[in-house]
Amino acid sequence: MERFQGRTDLALEATERFEDDQVEISGVKITEYYRQETDIKITKVVIETENGSKVMGKPRGTYLTLEAPNMSVPDEGYHREVSEELARQIVQLIGDRQKEKSVLVVGLGNREVTPDALGPDVVGNLLITRHILREYGKIAMEKEKVNAVSAIVPGVMAQTGMETLEILQGVVGETKPDVVIVVDALAARSTRRLNRTIQISDAGIHPGSGVGNHRQALTQETLGVPVIAVGVPTVVDAATIVHDTMESLVDAMGQSERLRRLGDSLASLDTSEKYQLIRELISPQLNGMFVTPKDIDETVKRIGFTISEGINMALQIE
Amino acid sequence: MERFQGRTDLALEATERFEDDQVEISGVKITEYYRQETDIKITKVVIETENGSKVMGKPRGTYLTLEAPNMSVPDEGYHREVSEELARQIVQLIGDRQKEKSVLVVGLGNREVTPDALGPDVVGNLLITRHILREYGKIAMEKEKVNAVSAIVPGVMAQTGMETLEILQGVVGETKPDVVIVVDALAARSTRRLNRTIQISDAGIHPGSGVGNHRQALTQETLGVPVIAVGVPTVVDAATIVHDTMESLVDAMGQSERLRRLGDSLASLDTSEKYQLIRELISPQLNGMFVTPKDIDETVKRIGFTISEGINMALQIE
Amino acid sequence: MERFQGRTDLALEATERFEDDQVEISGVKITEYYRQETDIKITKVVIETENGSKVMGKPRGTYLTLEAPNMSVPDEGYHREVSEELARQIVQLIGDRQKEKSVLVVGLGNREVTPDALGPDVVGNLLITRHILREYGKIAMEKEKVNAVSAIVPGVMAQTGMETLEILQGVVGETKPDVVIVVDALAARSTRRLNRTIQISDAGIHPGSGVGNHRQALTQETLGVPVIAVGVPTVVDAATIVHDTMESLVDAMGQSERLRRLGDSLASLDTSEKYQLIRELISPQLNGMFVTPKDIDETVKRIGFTISEGINMALQIE
Amino acid sequence: MERFQGRTDLALEATERFEDDQVEISGVKITEYYRQETDIKITKVVIETENGSKVMGKPRGTYLTLEAPNMSVPDEGYHREVSEELARQIVQLIGDRQKEKSVLVVGLGNREVTPDALGPDVVGNLLITRHILREYGKIAMEKEKVNAVSAIVPGVMAQTGMETLEILQGVVGETKPDVVIVVDALAARSTRRLNRTIQISDAGIHPGSGVGNHRQALTQETLGVPVIAVGVPTVVDAATIVHDTMESLVDAMGQSERLRRLGDSLASLDTSEKYQLIRELISPQLNGMFVTPKDIDETVKRIGFTISEGINMALQIE
Repeated sequence: MERFQGRTDLALEATERFEDDQVEISGVKITEYYRQETDIKITKVVIETENGSKVMGKPRGTYLTLEAPNMSVPDEGYHREVSEELARQIVQLIGDRQKEKSVLVVGLGNREVTPDALGPDVVGNLLITRHILREYGKIAMEKEKVNAVSAIVPGVMAQTGMETLEILQGVVGETKPDVVIVVDALAARSTRRLNRTIQISDAGIHPGSGVGNHRQALTQETLGVPVIAVGVPTVVDAATIVHDTMESLVDAMGQSERLRRLGDSLASLDTSEKYQLIRELISPQLNGMFVTPKDIDETVKRIGFTISEGINMALQIE
Repeated sequence: MERFQGRTDLALEATERFEDDQVEISGVKITEYYRQETDIKITKVVIETENGSKVMGKPRGTYLTLEAPNMSVPDEGYHREVSEELARQIVQLIGDRQKEKSVLVVGLGNREVTPDALGPDVVGNLLITRHILREYGKIAMEKEKVNAVSAIVPGVMAQTGMETLEILQGVVGETKPDVVIVVDALAARSTRRLNRTIQISDAGIHPGSGVGNHRQALTQETLGVPVIAVGVPTVVDAATIVHDTMESLVDAMGQSERLRRLGDSLASLDTSEKYQLIRELISPQLNGMFVTPKDIDETVKRIGFTISEGINMALQIE
Repeated sequence: MERFQGRTDLALEATERFEDDQVEISGVKITEYYRQETDIKITKVVIETENGSKVMGKPRGTYLTLEAPNMSVPDEGYHREVSEELARQIVQLIGDRQKEKSVLVVGLGNREVTPDALGPDVVGNLLITRHILREYGKIAMEKEKVNAVSAIVPGVMAQTGMETLEILQGVVGETKPDVVIVVDALAARSTRRLNRTIQISDAGIHPGSGVGNHRQALTQETLGVPVIAVGVPTVVDAATIVHDTMESLVDAMGQSERLRRLGDSLASLDTSEKYQLIRELISPQLNGMFVTPKDIDETVKRIGFTISEGINMALQIE
Repeated sequence: MERFQGRTDLALEATERFEDDQVEISGVKITEYYRQETDIKITKVVIETENGSKVMGKPRGTYLTLEAPNMSVPDEGYHREVSEELARQIVQLIGDRQKEKSVLVVGLGNREVTPDALGPDVVGNLLITRHILREYGKIAMEKEKVNAVSAIVPGVMAQTGMETLEILQGVVGETKPDVVIVVDALAARSTRRLNRTIQISDAGIHPGSGVGNHRQALTQETLGVPVIAVGVPTVVDAATIVHDTMESLVDAMGQSERLRRLGDSLASLDTSEKYQLIRELISPQLNGMFVTPKDIDETVKRIGFTISEGINMALQIE
């Protein structure tokens, strides 16, 4: 049975498909914890085996999800508590905070398309140090240990004519960072996740992911250095939303007291017949349509600031 | 029977609800024509009576709709053929092109919210003449007859703390234009209409219309001079899209060969039960969510230019 | 003797013309104080008589100047100390902080011209309350006393075809605020003052002031309510800079040891001959040219935030 | 004698220093022609020898300057006649229009700084083809011969922490274009040249050139492929303007009838004494200050469009 899965870049949402089935997926470890003081829920999905990777539809690696319901709402400090949690998680993925490193931060996405501008926005607020270190040395930074931070906004293929991977292979080859951090806007399955979830992963970024279409994988394999991906879902495919509600309708028809008489007949449809039906009904005009909150312009700028603060904290050696 | 109508600012879409019923609505006249050379379809809905107004859910007046499928796609000349058609229709609504007039153009909407920035964008491209005429006279324009064109972007209530109506009553009272043209981004019911439809009306703009919430009507009654509204749908409510697809599902269940056995039971639900069911299932998280095409940033700018060119042409006395 | 005065909107700079002459100007009172803890110098110029007004080239009223050298440089808190000082001074000019008032803030200038966008930027960050008070009452604000704050960005005459005064007379007539606060970008005489000086005045805004050209005075006389003007110099006329340096040259020629032999001959030129000479030499191509620092885009945004915070503080009743 | 030369990126202005002297510079060939039908003056400066390079303060190569006085003023067609002339000159520098080439266009400068945003603006309007050719082949372009056009906006060092040269060496190494075209905003010596002059050169871009500071040369030597630089002066150093006017003053003193008595004494100053005097008097506060016309925001966008159209024409094989 092939399921309509809706488009999601979140490993967390990929696990949810299996929740009802109460099945443990072999090769996938899921742990959750909740920080009461900051109201942030952290879910860690580790995909350990090829089998786990196949079932989840995501490459092997660690996927951390921060769910911070308040992030979609402005506050005075740009949600410093979220930046701090993000910094903590990035530091763990990079490892050995005390060792000086050279880090290249990549802001993926199209700055001309509001919900896709998250990556470029984040890069705009970073503390860039590499050029200062190279020109004046650590003394200019008044610190004993300093990471060399550089950044680039490569643009999207329609603007550059080049694969993002080509540009980054060139820049990484020339400037030789120890780690690459890639920031991107993601698509979620559920509007419930929009602008309030951060995914951090050491599995890199993969074809067809993101709001834009960065087609070739940006991973340790292709770039030659560890790649940490940081993403926030800023859109939901319009078709996904329609699909999900209709699925609820079909389910309700099978369950609701009032609709029992319908349920009886629906019960006689098998699952693939049900999904075939839904797929047929979703309007082809929804292709290329996205669902976003009305205040997305302001929200993306604000969250971009929260993310860049998190990266700034993570890259400072104390 | 109360029907879920989905939110639409288009009189054209309001008429479509009745199409299946093959009913003529008393007090409403609909005429259509098609310009082959420009591929623009024009629908004229005249709501003549209070009854027509009630049935349509729109105030009395003339509503012209230009459907220009190509408008959502860029071309070299910013769709000059659309600007020309728009100009022709505005001129007809204003009447007596040869008489010199003073015209105030109002760009409604929030320039910080991409799909709502159409009005401000249009005003940014207008040929403003009033101040030149007042300072130097017609001689500065090298024409025999010149309309005095002024313009304002009043902003939305969350930014100004004032009703748009208050601001415009003040400005109209002080500068005494003969006509007001109000430009606004609209909400449509169907993604099929997004960015390819222009509605022109002499009925003004009404509470709850538009993407933003301009609550008090801008009409000849409230402003004291004729008000011509020009609008383009740039968003669809997310809930509307879901609703429409679900409606198709319910309908399909009643009709499809394959689903006849379901249809029998659905037939036993009356219409209001059906709509109640749909409404319950639409996620409350869709509130405040909009569906837009991905390239909305660029599209709004481009269409804004087409509209302002149309107004510029309409306001030039040849 | 007619002096080339260079264009300045700062009363402070107008007084400097007389400093060398060690003359007290009758009808003008100048007091200065310095806040060490914040490094802000405050100069208060009160023009009390018609004579004072004539000599100063400014209308009667109180002109406060805050000189905050650090304001042109970013800091973490957007120079909260400057916002606080600004709030204190505005409160003094408005008077009786405990009385509830209705305040209209006007952001003058052209948002499409970087150094002139200060007014629109400030309005974008204000806490607007009037619409909330009118719809839900004070209870929605959870305070005992609340000022009703509204705001408007009228645009410049080339965009609107209307005098700013016409628009404001309309809006003030309709919404009847108790006080109007007008925010504008100013021109200074000296680059030393750019982006680090705030002028606050109860004399309103006058013809030909500002970076743009708001030709009719916005004052208590024309608007019917007290008008408080807040301005920051963001540009210097290119001609002014050239003029000032040349004046130094001519002076140096009269004084320098090395140039004594020139001085002797220069001494024989009278003042008006000297200024005539300078004026002739200033290139007409400098007309319409402005001098700004390279980072003006970022600086205007930042200072706009400092100013709007100051106004927000001033308009909150504690 | 060391002369204060003012900062200029224009070879044309470098030649002007010698004009009074009526000297031919050995190793430098200057030819001029004027196209009456388009009112464009073209000056070709070829620096042929090391000596010529030293005297001119520019590396060897061909420098074409288009002077189009109308370019600083808007017209309906975005000055298509200038785009066409630019295309013609670029084609000549690239050579062999009929041979298919891969061309990388680089938009230098900082998109957050208005007068420095020319390069990024130009790239935003280019016809990018490389990715289409690679994915679908020439057939998708419906042409027999197509150049593969790619583009990048590398950002400035303060944003990236990397030298522009490092980024470009990486990208060129990876994507192997046949030619690189670099677009940049320049500094001129005279406000007379602002926004109405285009310089096209095969000598690349050099340290300290441009409005920003792209420190390492982008040339055939460093990038391994021919580099064509296209630039438009959008600013003048404030100090340069002051200097030039003062120089006129000093000259006038030596010449003017009225000032003969001064002239006699000035004649006794030698040239280096005169320039020393001027330099001392220029205010250090002018450092980092630029002179731009007030409408620079709009002008840069408009000229960016003219330039990108010129490049688009040059890169199309007919």
